[in-house]
Amino acid sequence: MRRIHVIGIGAGDPDQLTLQAVRALRSTDVFFILDKGEVKSDLTQLRRDILDAHLPEGTYRLVQARDPERDRAAGGGAYSPAVGDWRSARAGIYERLIAEELGEDDSGAFLVWGDPALYDSTIGILEEVLGRGEVAFEYDVVPGISSVSALVARHRTGLNRVARPVQITTGRRLAEGFPQDVDDVVVMLDAHQTFRQYADQDMDIYWGAYIGTPDEILASGPIAEAAPRIERLRAEARERKGWIMDTYLLRRNPDVR
Amino acid sequence: MRRIHVIGIGAGDPDQLTLQAVRALRSTDVFFILDKGEVKSDLTQLRRDILDAHLPEGTYRLVQARDPERDRAAGGGAYSPAVGDWRSARAGIYERLIAEELGEDDSGAFLVWGDPALYDSTIGILEEVLGRGEVAFEYDVVPGISSVSALVARHRTGLNRVARPVQITTGRRLAEGFPQDVDDVVVMLDAHQTFRQYADQDMDIYWGAYIGTPDEILASGPIAEAAPRIERLRAEARERKGWIMDTYLLRRNPDVR
Ligand SMILES: C[S@@+](CC[C@H](N)C(=O)[O-])C[C@H]1O[C@@H](n2cnc3c(N)ncnc32)[C@H](O)[C@@H]1O
Ligand SMILES: C[S@@+](CC[C@H](N)C(=O)[O-])C[C@H]1O[C@@H](n2cnc3c(N)ncnc32)[C@H](O)[C@@H]1O
Repeated sequence: MRRIHVIGIGAGDPDQLTLQAVRALRSTDVFFILDKGEVKSDLTQLRRDILDAHLPEGTYRLVQARDPERDRAAGGGAYSPAVGDWRSARAGIYERLIAEELGEDDSGAFLVWGDPALYDSTIGILEEVLGRGEVAFEYDVVPGISSVSALVARHRTGLNRVARPVQITTGRRLAEGFPQDVDDVVVMLDAHQTFRQYADQDMDIYWGAYIGTPDEILASGPIAEAAPRIERLRAEARERKGWIMDTYLLRRNPDVR
Repeated sequence: MRRIHVIGIGAGDPDQLTLQAVRALRSTDVFFILDKGEVKSDLTQLRRDILDAHLPEGTYRLVQARDPERDRAAGGGAYSPAVGDWRSARAGIYERLIAEELGEDDSGAFLVWGDPALYDSTIGILEEVLGRGEVAFEYDVVPGISSVSALVARHRTGLNRVARPVQITTGRRLAEGFPQDVDDVVVMLDAHQTFRQYADQDMDIYWGAYIGTPDEILASGPIAEAAPRIERLRAEARERKGWIMDTYLLRRNPDVR
């Protein structure tokens, strides 16, 4: 039986792999890397660096494929249809990779950025491939340190306050309004610095870009003061590197403990 | 300068420590373990096992102290005042531990269950100790795999659905109603199996107890069918071990992708 590991590799710091992840890497014959094209090639390189850090060179086989572009423009408010098509296209690619590149008794791995549980489609796609019934395999999931955990660790703060909830959401959702009934909100996938929308409120922000990598930038403070500073830092970094990944925690009514 | 590591050690599986956590353990002179009394002594033992797994015996110093009991009864709906007193009492203990047990150039560590960012007071207490100004130290936080990440990895599902939010909350909060504007909710610290309250709704539940340990139990399914099953499993396990720690994800309208 073919065996597949979905391995969370942390959000940038190769030391934030778990021992379980390292063991899973070492028991893998073929690594699949899905490449999102040039802008993200730094991320692909980071994945390779992680393999090189933990595996003797030449002992592993790497198969790289091109990830189909998601049609972001088509989506509008709820971009589920485009996501559906995209997922099917990806399922086709994964199916082919598994069937063609993995021998009957081989084990393969998908290296997932951060934690496979957060805004990642690998598990959903593998389920879709299994559902098609063309190729059989077993798989397991190795959790990873998410960019969310890494962010708050660097800021030495918690996600939630005592006995209170925390929500993790997207920039797109945050643009529709601050979530109900929750004062601590982590925002991912925000291309538009939606935090600016809340700059006149009683809120603290804890922001980080390229967390865990040598390019890491952190900033925090009351949002009125910090928002323009983060905007500047973000623009400079984006200009310099050509791409950015950032995450932030908004803490409403920060004086309430 | 005294140096302190707040180290997330994962939620039960010693293989779920990160390489960064192992390095931090190895650079620590004195480990502080705060003991919550007999019921939780298994957790204390698990912490010791982790030290023994990663450090040569006899090379480290362990200081164990008794954690003051939190007055849960006093709190009612919002138990902040009791929590406040409890935090001060703990700050006093931490201050003493650091001042008395840690030499000027030593480094100490607090081993935190799961991820220090989730429902853990260590960071808050250290900030309070620093605020008192009686003892000076530097500290950093090493993120860990939370029971939340471990739960969904074992169930091979994600926390959020595509482009949608997820909330992490407590049993107490869930008892007040299902959170607004979010269909994926992780519940921690639930002594009352509050999920039963939602057993007539269109919801899936993914439940786990003692996740990552040899006693791990997992159960999932549509809540109407799974809730009584989980109730039984939970009662049996609690009876057998004398204590339980469990976490679950509720997924409302599971057919919506
Ligand atoms: C497609 S999601 C994947 C999240 C990933 N599975 C995780 O657990 O962090 C990509 C988003 O994660 C966040 N992100 C990932 N890595 C990051 C890093 N090193 N620094 C800051 N944000 C990061 C950004 O918000 C980015 O838009
Ligand atoms: C005080 S909180 C600490 C959470 C911890 N910092 C984390 O990241 O998982 C304790 C709660 O965590 C959850 N928990 C911790 N370890 C667990 C495990 N191994 N299995 C299931 N639930 C666990 C339970 O909901 C428990 O009530």
